[in-house]
Amino acid sequence: MPRLETATLERLREIVGPANVLIREEDLEPYTHDELPGLSAVPEAVVKPGSAQEIAAVLRLANEALFPVTPRGLGTGLSGGALAVMGGIILSLERLDRILEIDEANLMVVTQPAVITGQLQKEVEARGLFYPVDPASLDSCSIGGNIAENAGGPRAVKYGVTRDYVTGIEAVLPDGEIIRYGGKVVKNVTGYDLANLLIGSEGTLGVITEITLKLLPLPPHRVDLLVPFDDFRQAIRAVATIISGRKILPVVLEFMDQAGVKACEAFLDKQLPFSDAAAQLIIGLDGTSAAEVEAQYTSVAELCLEIGAADVLVADNPANKDRLWEARRILLETLKAQSPVVEVEDVVVPRSVIPDLVERVAAIAERTGFRMVQWGHAGDGNVHIGIMKMDLDQQAWEEGLPRVAEEIFTAALALGGAITGEHGIGRVKRRFLPMAVGPAEQRAMKRLKEAFDPKGILNPGKIFAD
Amino acid sequence: MPRLETATLERLREIVGPANVLIREEDLEPYTHDELPGLSAVPEAVVKPGSAQEIAAVLRLANEALFPVTPRGLGTGLSGGALAVMGGIILSLERLDRILEIDEANLMVVTQPAVITGQLQKEVEARGLFYPVDPASLDSCSIGGNIAENAGGPRAVKYGVTRDYVTGIEAVLPDGEIIRYGGKVVKNVTGYDLANLLIGSEGTLGVITEITLKLLPLPPHRVDLLVPFDDFRQAIRAVATIISGRKILPVVLEFMDQAGVKACEAFLDKQLPFSDAAAQLIIGLDGTSAAEVEAQYTSVAELCLEIGAADVLVADNPANKDRLWEARRILLETLKAQSPVVEVEDVVVPRSVIPDLVERVAAIAERTGFRMVQWGHAGDGNVHIGIMKMDLDQQAWEEGLPRVAEEIFTAALALGGAITGEHGIGRVKRRFLPMAVGPAEQRAMKRLKEAFDPKGILNPGKIFAD
Repeated sequence: MPRLETATLERLREIVGPANVLIREEDLEPYTHDELPGLSAVPEAVVKPGSAQEIAAVLRLANEALFPVTPRGLGTGLSGGALAVMGGIILSLERLDRILEIDEANLMVVTQPAVITGQLQKEVEARGLFYPVDPASLDSCSIGGNIAENAGGPRAVKYGVTRDYVTGIEAVLPDGEIIRYGGKVVKNVTGYDLANLLIGSEGTLGVITEITLKLLPLPPHRVDLLVPFDDFRQAIRAVATIISGRKILPVVLEFMDQAGVKACEAFLDKQLPFSDAAAQLIIGLDGTSAAEVEAQYTSVAELCLEIGAADVLVADNPANKDRLWEARRILLETLKAQSPVVEVEDVVVPRSVIPDLVERVAAIAERTGFRMVQWGHAGDGNVHIGIMKMDLDQQAWEEGLPRVAEEIFTAALALGGAITGEHGIGRVKRRFLPMAVGPAEQRAMKRLKEAFDPKGILNPGKIFAD
Repeated sequence: MPRLETATLERLREIVGPANVLIREEDLEPYTHDELPGLSAVPEAVVKPGSAQEIAAVLRLANEALFPVTPRGLGTGLSGGALAVMGGIILSLERLDRILEIDEANLMVVTQPAVITGQLQKEVEARGLFYPVDPASLDSCSIGGNIAENAGGPRAVKYGVTRDYVTGIEAVLPDGEIIRYGGKVVKNVTGYDLANLLIGSEGTLGVITEITLKLLPLPPHRVDLLVPFDDFRQAIRAVATIISGRKILPVVLEFMDQAGVKACEAFLDKQLPFSDAAAQLIIGLDGTSAAEVEAQYTSVAELCLEIGAADVLVADNPANKDRLWEARRILLETLKAQSPVVEVEDVVVPRSVIPDLVERVAAIAERTGFRMVQWGHAGDGNVHIGIMKMDLDQQAWEEGLPRVAEEIFTAALALGGAITGEHGIGRVKRRFLPMAVGPAEQRAMKRLKEAFDPKGILNPGKIFAD
């Protein structure tokens, strides 16, 4: 891979201004990794554009001088997608951090990509509006990164994923063309939908510079339940029965296993509710009236007790909600305290077969000796598996992890699932792409990439195995 | 355009069976038009494959022998997308007409493309499930056609459009490759989303042969209101205030103008409710409890009366619902009785500017002398404009219509809207595509087409002006 020439660096400085081109080692360091442990890459430079026009100029230059350009939001990804693994520059979108308009009449928000998702949520909620997509990293991740990965989160069971809210984009294509598609319209079938093409493309087909999102009215009432079960299968049967039996769609439907809750208890050094249970569900119910939500949670609580729940804890105010969510919130931090290296998988399966997946994963853990904790979004079939390095030596970890991951993916795929529900393929899962999609599908995907980025300058070394 | 050779026809017969290749004039006739008036094209043959494999063989042959292949669902499109305008064959999917599985545990349905949308809805509703997308043609249109056009309908205001429900597809690409993407998973970010690439591509990038749709629990309660206003602007102000002021998202929010209601009254030769009002809203509210829906409709009714509604008619049983919807349901039929040729536009604008659009369209009608009736989905900004030929001579109609359409599109685009919300570009709007999307966007769209269909055999003569 050729190094950036001095003349190229000089042209980058002309495009974005000298202060927005970083090359000193200590300045580059924050851009060498994302939230995925164990993977890093030092870019040759970090370039911080201030507009779509500047990004277009950078991309035109990259096509001319042939250097890799890796777009980066706020670096909270979990698949290594924002690392400059082939050298070249990181194109950091951090300066494009403004909410441009909250349009209350049309329930729309227009925003730049580096706005923090949680911040955007707070701003719209202050106006009685609701942007439901809530990835775990919402206090630090960017809305542009969410779109690049088509991020989900716990509320996806009722409210869907990022794609469901994007009605318009401005983006710069790899050749430097600036395109717009859609806007403040909730229906639009004008030619090919270029917005949906870029959503979930992990920064390999274009750089998104402006986003229009549709919003919902903020549901004024929400109650959360914490429900312990002595038998894991009962917990998952409750999940299925709430949704397909009682026809109630909770806003969140999370589960945690005993190992996870116990780990949190030890980490916090205090007793957590129901920590002896084999599994816990957190069930959130929202609606437009208190009576509606009460009717729903009464029905759900009765059902859980019928199925075998040991108890039901109801939280309807911020203080008891905090207590109810405590373990779930700090789970990953807890695991990292036990094992600084934790690889988090996010396979997804049809909801009805979650018990099978969880049992197969437990069997893989037992057979391989790798410590694993499982939790996640039971309502939408998206299961997170924390594979913990613990005190395993580096060689054993590096050799063992891909085999363990492959076994987990094999299990998910055999159950009709997918290898990633919301984290993306990025750098770390690309070797597994051929397990998940066949040769014809891979050829179709590569045709897309080649059509838009014939010189391969935009985020190379991602998604595809070769 | 070369005619199909006899040897080619023979090979088509070998692929799908002789009975499934039609060439007699009277057999071809039903395939010469869709529901768009004034446009027809006679295919050289109609080919009715029975499987994805047969479609793959037909497309491989088309690439070899270079004949156009125009996929067709059930022929209810409104943009001429399923007409063989460049000759060649119609690839009718009518034999792929089975619902393959209703998966109640996972709230999913797996279906072939030629299943009638309304039939699919009935089947899932019988199990307490809900497929909300309801294009006006739902009793005759196919689910595959809905996906090709990314169809909407009145319920889009609350429940979104076709794209929001597709979680998996099997499709045949123009080169004959069979691909699958997704399945019974509601989150999936495995490489580029090939399903979303094909949704809304109007049968020009691939032929969809199997579809997995996510379903919702069927809301058990629904009440509809008919609300007359003496002032059109008041009606639209009510729309905006219900949603952004009261934070209530109705399941439908339709409007009709006086001309439309009066026409229906004359057509039916009976009095319809509130036919003297300048505009009527139909507001549907649904929910999980009767109390919730009652609270919502009380709030909406009060608000409408405050804003200036003359009355509010509440329908909570099938009989009075039928009466309430009578005019809206037969509107298009009524217009066709007055004028056998009616061109229906479906521009979309941000909800808040519907009054501006409606006034500009009324001004265009007045200035040009073309008779127009406006109605549509006020809740999502999707306005239908019926332009009626009446007794205008053919030449005046053919010369005038494009100018009138262009003026309407100019108005919609100037208001931040789009030229088609749910009918697609197809054949009839392609000359207007350059008004709606710029040169960079058109180049990007053409790159997609060329990447997947380099020989241009799949549905040529659609979407693009040249």
